[in-house]
Amino acid sequence: MGRIGDEDPPAAPRSAALLRFLEMSEDFSERMNELRGGWPETMGITITRATADEVKGELTVGPQHLQPYGVVHGGVHCGLIETLASVGAALFALPRGQSVVGLENSTSFVRAVRAGAKLHAISTPITRGRTTQVWEATIFDEEDRIVATGRVRLLCLDPGRPLAGEQVRAPQHPGT
Amino acid sequence: MGRIGDEDPPAAPRSAALLRFLEMSEDFSERMNELRGGWPETMGITITRATADEVKGELTVGPQHLQPYGVVHGGVHCGLIETLASVGAALFALPRGQSVVGLENSTSFVRAVRAGAKLHAISTPITRGRTTQVWEATIFDEEDRIVATGRVRLLCLDPGRPLAGEQVRAPQHPGT
Amino acid sequence: MGRIGDEDPPAAPRSAALLRFLEMSEDFSERMNELRGGWPETMGITITRATADEVKGELTVGPQHLQPYGVVHGGVHCGLIETLASVGAALFALPRGQSVVGLENSTSFVRAVRAGAKLHAISTPITRGRTTQVWEATIFDEEDRIVATGRVRLLCLDPGRPLAGEQVRAPQHPGT
Amino acid sequence: MGRIGDEDPPAAPRSAALLRFLEMSEDFSERMNELRGGWPETMGITITRATADEVKGELTVGPQHLQPYGVVHGGVHCGLIETLASVGAALFALPRGQSVVGLENSTSFVRAVRAGAKLHAISTPITRGRTTQVWEATIFDEEDRIVATGRVRLLCLDPGRPLAGEQVRAPQHPGT
Repeated sequence: MGRIGDEDPPAAPRSAALLRFLEMSEDFSERMNELRGGWPETMGITITRATADEVKGELTVGPQHLQPYGVVHGGVHCGLIETLASVGAALFALPRGQSVVGLENSTSFVRAVRAGAKLHAISTPITRGRTTQVWEATIFDEEDRIVATGRVRLLCLDPGRPLAGEQVRAPQHPGT
Repeated sequence: MGRIGDEDPPAAPRSAALLRFLEMSEDFSERMNELRGGWPETMGITITRATADEVKGELTVGPQHLQPYGVVHGGVHCGLIETLASVGAALFALPRGQSVVGLENSTSFVRAVRAGAKLHAISTPITRGRTTQVWEATIFDEEDRIVATGRVRLLCLDPGRPLAGEQVRAPQHPGT
Repeated sequence: MGRIGDEDPPAAPRSAALLRFLEMSEDFSERMNELRGGWPETMGITITRATADEVKGELTVGPQHLQPYGVVHGGVHCGLIETLASVGAALFALPRGQSVVGLENSTSFVRAVRAGAKLHAISTPITRGRTTQVWEATIFDEEDRIVATGRVRLLCLDPGRPLAGEQVRAPQHPGT
Repeated sequence: MGRIGDEDPPAAPRSAALLRFLEMSEDFSERMNELRGGWPETMGITITRATADEVKGELTVGPQHLQPYGVVHGGVHCGLIETLASVGAALFALPRGQSVVGLENSTSFVRAVRAGAKLHAISTPITRGRTTQVWEATIFDEEDRIVATGRVRLLCLDPGRPLAGEQVRAPQHPGT
């Protein structure tokens, strides 16, 4: 029996020490916040923990997060979930020199939240294969009630694989 | 046989004339752009067509849409799909005095796009019931290649139903 | 702030004692197996725990579960997840006299399994509202490795609400 | 710009003639029904068209499809959608010697149907890459009303890639 699409022998890690280091859950959140990209920055998402085993983030709801009814837009929840899942998957794929790209995002909305709310979220892996990964993430309000939850399936791209016509320059990779 | 959760007799529309008017596909895109809310505005989403049968929108990719690899963040695609589906569902629900709220968003990412790309998207209904609606939406690049596609399930809320602790003030409703 | 679509005051339970009784996690699995319906029976699904807080089930993979490559068909995983989620949601909705119907099923496949494998699964609630519920469920193999995981969104139907043209006769309700 | 995960040069097809042949939409439905596997057979699914561009199937609802309320179980809809999508993706992947395996299934339920109903379904591709494919499928009743709709994401496995611990023996491949 084997994980779907992952039955070939695992790639030799670049460095067993690096692999072990990453698995020891070093927290790359500071580096991730520097590299987070325009969308997470525009959304005010702060990564508060970033390891290959667990990723956490938070944001305070402002006008830029709202839909016309005055509650947080569903795209913000989907995107926060996508952000945390991608950071975790990228950190797990890093020792192999792989980058990751999202394939599918499925998000359930549970609770409407308004401006001023402080949201925090956590993402953990369901499966971390050589070909694909699945991470789930859940967003909570200040009272730790679930606001939204979702899963992201990501494809792992081997080194040198072009993404959208250019080589991936891997800015998300903290060590390179 | 009946639509799931929708088997009770349809509510009398507020006005048969209004209902017919809306079904005639009047385009509310101008009004929708005024009311679109902070997230769609921050994302630069322009609604180019808004009827109860079809909604279209577009955006030009800028720095605020990108993730760390320099391609559009998945949350932008999920959110554009959510925006168009919500506008269509809201317009359909309007003659009953209902508002709508997203329950589920499931999006597939197909093609990575970079800054400068002009995206356009279209959303059409799968089912429009009295209790829930399902709309699908697809995003295309300038060459009409699919960039992402998704479905949104929405709950229809009867008039006066509070959303997140306050009465819905229905800014998305063009006629009020 | 409130749960989506659930902001009106909760319905008075038929009986506070019954409600409390159910919340005390009485196990209805035996009754559920009698009532499980043709599909779960054809699939050999046995419910091993059925409460409003947690549902468990199992099956042994046979020829009737396979797709052409000789591994379990994705529909079996989706359906096992749907079964457990529906049982839990129905038990939670029961004290209000409500029945439930699935709206959305989103399932990730993680590990291919072959004939002879014994699968077990558990489902727990994400949100249990008066209008909708979300349950997640995960399927494991004998070594407790994840085989598949998914979420189901269900609509709660008030008493007397017809489903598919007939009154719901509520065979899934253990007490009626 | 490129399709996600598919930017490397396409594999040389085994035979340009074979590829063209398949793209000409030869109908493999008869062969597919012989090879359909235990689950589709137990569910009484008949493939009525099977090409790399479009797949159709049908079933008549019987006791083996029902959940306790007497309507078709959600797992049947998910599984019918999975079946059609997988047949199409497998036929598309065949000229490369690839097999396919489902990664994600997201299905929306629209209309409850009872025993005796005749359902028909159609699946078409959203994207057909070298690494992954996405197919959507919709199920209709006799009056061509939508009963359910969904999308399936599939991973393409290169020749010789083991699936669940054994070599894929490719029974779904019509030409081998």
